[in-house]
Amino acid sequence: MPVITLLTDFGIKDEYVGIMKGVILSINPSASIIDISHSILPHDIVNAAYLTNYCYRYFPEGSIHVVVVDPGVGSNRAIFAAEVNGHYFIAPDNGVLSLLLEEEKNCKIVKLDKNEWFLKPVSNTFHGRDIFAPIAAQLSKGKSLEELGIPIDQNTVVTVKIPKPEISDNGELIGEVVSIDRFGNLITNIDAKILDTFTSNLNKKGFQIIIGKNRIEYLSTSYSNTLAGNPLAIIGSRGFLEIAVNHGSAEHYFNAKKVGKIRIVKK
Amino acid sequence: MPVITLLTDFGIKDEYVGIMKGVILSINPSASIIDISHSILPHDIVNAAYLTNYCYRYFPEGSIHVVVVDPGVGSNRAIFAAEVNGHYFIAPDNGVLSLLLEEEKNCKIVKLDKNEWFLKPVSNTFHGRDIFAPIAAQLSKGKSLEELGIPIDQNTVVTVKIPKPEISDNGELIGEVVSIDRFGNLITNIDAKILDTFTSNLNKKGFQIIIGKNRIEYLSTSYSNTLAGNPLAIIGSRGFLEIAVNHGSAEHYFNAKKVGKIRIVKK
Amino acid sequence: MPVITLLTDFGIKDEYVGIMKGVILSINPSASIIDISHSILPHDIVNAAYLTNYCYRYFPEGSIHVVVVDPGVGSNRAIFAAEVNGHYFIAPDNGVLSLLLEEEKNCKIVKLDKNEWFLKPVSNTFHGRDIFAPIAAQLSKGKSLEELGIPIDQNTVVTVKIPKPEISDNGELIGEVVSIDRFGNLITNIDAKILDTFTSNLNKKGFQIIIGKNRIEYLSTSYSNTLAGNPLAIIGSRGFLEIAVNHGSAEHYFNAKKVGKIRIVKK
Repeated sequence: MPVITLLTDFGIKDEYVGIMKGVILSINPSASIIDISHSILPHDIVNAAYLTNYCYRYFPEGSIHVVVVDPGVGSNRAIFAAEVNGHYFIAPDNGVLSLLLEEEKNCKIVKLDKNEWFLKPVSNTFHGRDIFAPIAAQLSKGKSLEELGIPIDQNTVVTVKIPKPEISDNGELIGEVVSIDRFGNLITNIDAKILDTFTSNLNKKGFQIIIGKNRIEYLSTSYSNTLAGNPLAIIGSRGFLEIAVNHGSAEHYFNAKKVGKIRIVKK
Repeated sequence: MPVITLLTDFGIKDEYVGIMKGVILSINPSASIIDISHSILPHDIVNAAYLTNYCYRYFPEGSIHVVVVDPGVGSNRAIFAAEVNGHYFIAPDNGVLSLLLEEEKNCKIVKLDKNEWFLKPVSNTFHGRDIFAPIAAQLSKGKSLEELGIPIDQNTVVTVKIPKPEISDNGELIGEVVSIDRFGNLITNIDAKILDTFTSNLNKKGFQIIIGKNRIEYLSTSYSNTLAGNPLAIIGSRGFLEIAVNHGSAEHYFNAKKVGKIRIVKK
Repeated sequence: MPVITLLTDFGIKDEYVGIMKGVILSINPSASIIDISHSILPHDIVNAAYLTNYCYRYFPEGSIHVVVVDPGVGSNRAIFAAEVNGHYFIAPDNGVLSLLLEEEKNCKIVKLDKNEWFLKPVSNTFHGRDIFAPIAAQLSKGKSLEELGIPIDQNTVVTVKIPKPEISDNGELIGEVVSIDRFGNLITNIDAKILDTFTSNLNKKGFQIIIGKNRIEYLSTSYSNTLAGNPLAIIGSRGFLEIAVNHGSAEHYFNAKKVGKIRIVKK
């Protein structure tokens, strides 16, 4: 049976996630449902776009990934189901698929407005329960995208601007912190490939990472690569540059909210 | 295999929920266990009663719903298993089933004091592990209520007073906030049916909703029905009147702890 | 199919736990995965050691228990898989298995350095995804410890000092608070057996429990054994002495961070 993953901003204190699972199991009792996270900040479409484009790779082909970060619930925004790289995605048309679709052209996408598949009555406040969950369950039972929705052109899908790193006029690589994890690690939008290209002519100590008033002189290979309490830079598990503190929290060390841009400069 | 749902005030930082699942799987390895919420405020029987009466409808018939909000654990309060509308419920006799049983008379209810089904030794501090979990697992394997407990009369079950909306002397419909969700939406105890009856002779703009010093002039049909940052009233996913703020938090906007009664007045 | 349990300090706001589950299901689609807790304080090896030695007993024999509290990820610390009492454990070599192995000698333990079983490329920051998860999945499919790693001598495993209760020179039993649960109960390191031995010649009221400036005169048999708001002592669900407050929080009542040692004195 395919896996169904859930990525939402519902939190876990309320009943919302549990009810989505109930709706899915009512249609497909043998569905295997996995929580990615329900702690996306309310309405944080950019962070959801990052995770949507990253996490699916670790699930079996044919998995169904449900993304409900949906401030427009009940308005006339569309809901899509898409097939990308052998995985299925169900998401509102608000840009949450931007990064995923940016890398893949000519994806099969359908607009979900065949209401015979919805849970009735359809509310204006909880489409996760009334639309996303039943569609995910139907996909997991083998229904095709064409049975569940109307094909649309990928170019008509809403995109959001995802902040990308840039090369400044004076030749610096400029990125920013896009996420802070549980350990207080600052996850930037500078991926390993961009950093590698930027620093290709340099030896490992040929550049500095500038964050606030601090300079980090080299890339560490593990979180315990500095003395406890000291900051370090490392390529994290998502494949992006992270600023961390060994046995500590970079979030606190750097006063993360005021940290501004991250600059990589050649020495 | 039937679904087993869990609704508790255990939180998720401790091992309590995981251990209940271990006990269930030790008895029935193929049980499908779903978390509704473990974030009920410690000992908040009223909110647990609302969720117990609401969530089960979204699960397959035959599901087993375990409710462990149980300040009296280890005292001589009873534990019940009940069959209501084709679903099973296991709960302490402290009122947590009040709303559910209020609507259904002549339910089959048994008192769980056949200790041959319990995990031994039975502690005085964690009946979730020692009684609720093994009973749920036995029900999921097809044991009948009569095998697991002694039938009792529904009229002997403890009830708690659930705050209900009322019509005041001057003809206002008076309710209150009973729950605040992750988005800061204020969920009232005024359900759509009561509101509909109260306003039946009025057009959609014939009434006002008064909360604190604010007046909301009409029911919205979606959270994005006002300008961002503005309050609105809407029938939420549970079927109750909610006060929300588009792209914001009504909890912060209204200083929810001091908000007092919600009044619906005719214009 | 065996159960796989997860105990980590990853928290649940990030994608880390979901991704571990994706990796497991990619290898063994029918694995049954249960969360024990992901709220271990970052790098709190002592508390993880307590839970590792306690929780597994409630799961079916043959279960696989994955413990990722691993500040040394990416360094040269080893990762082990062990068989203890018919259960399997996968953990870093940092002392997290100390309590478990202290009670069981001659356990079968292998060092996991056969990288043909790892997810490639192996990162330096997320061995939960790249090593622990795939090994757990392989064990759940029936691979043997010997296939997955190289046997090592139990005596070479790292241990951490776990604070144990002691008898003082003046004959008091001295313990300490090692964990505080969701309800604010203070869980000590004094287990029921030690307390029983210490108090064996005494009647139930023959000793006092001293915590801060407070004295508790006897062991309660349930949390509701005192008046609401009053402190009590009880043997909790883990089998250790707990200090609780009926309908309240001992954490707040006693200012838990400053509470110091717990003393049991004979009257």
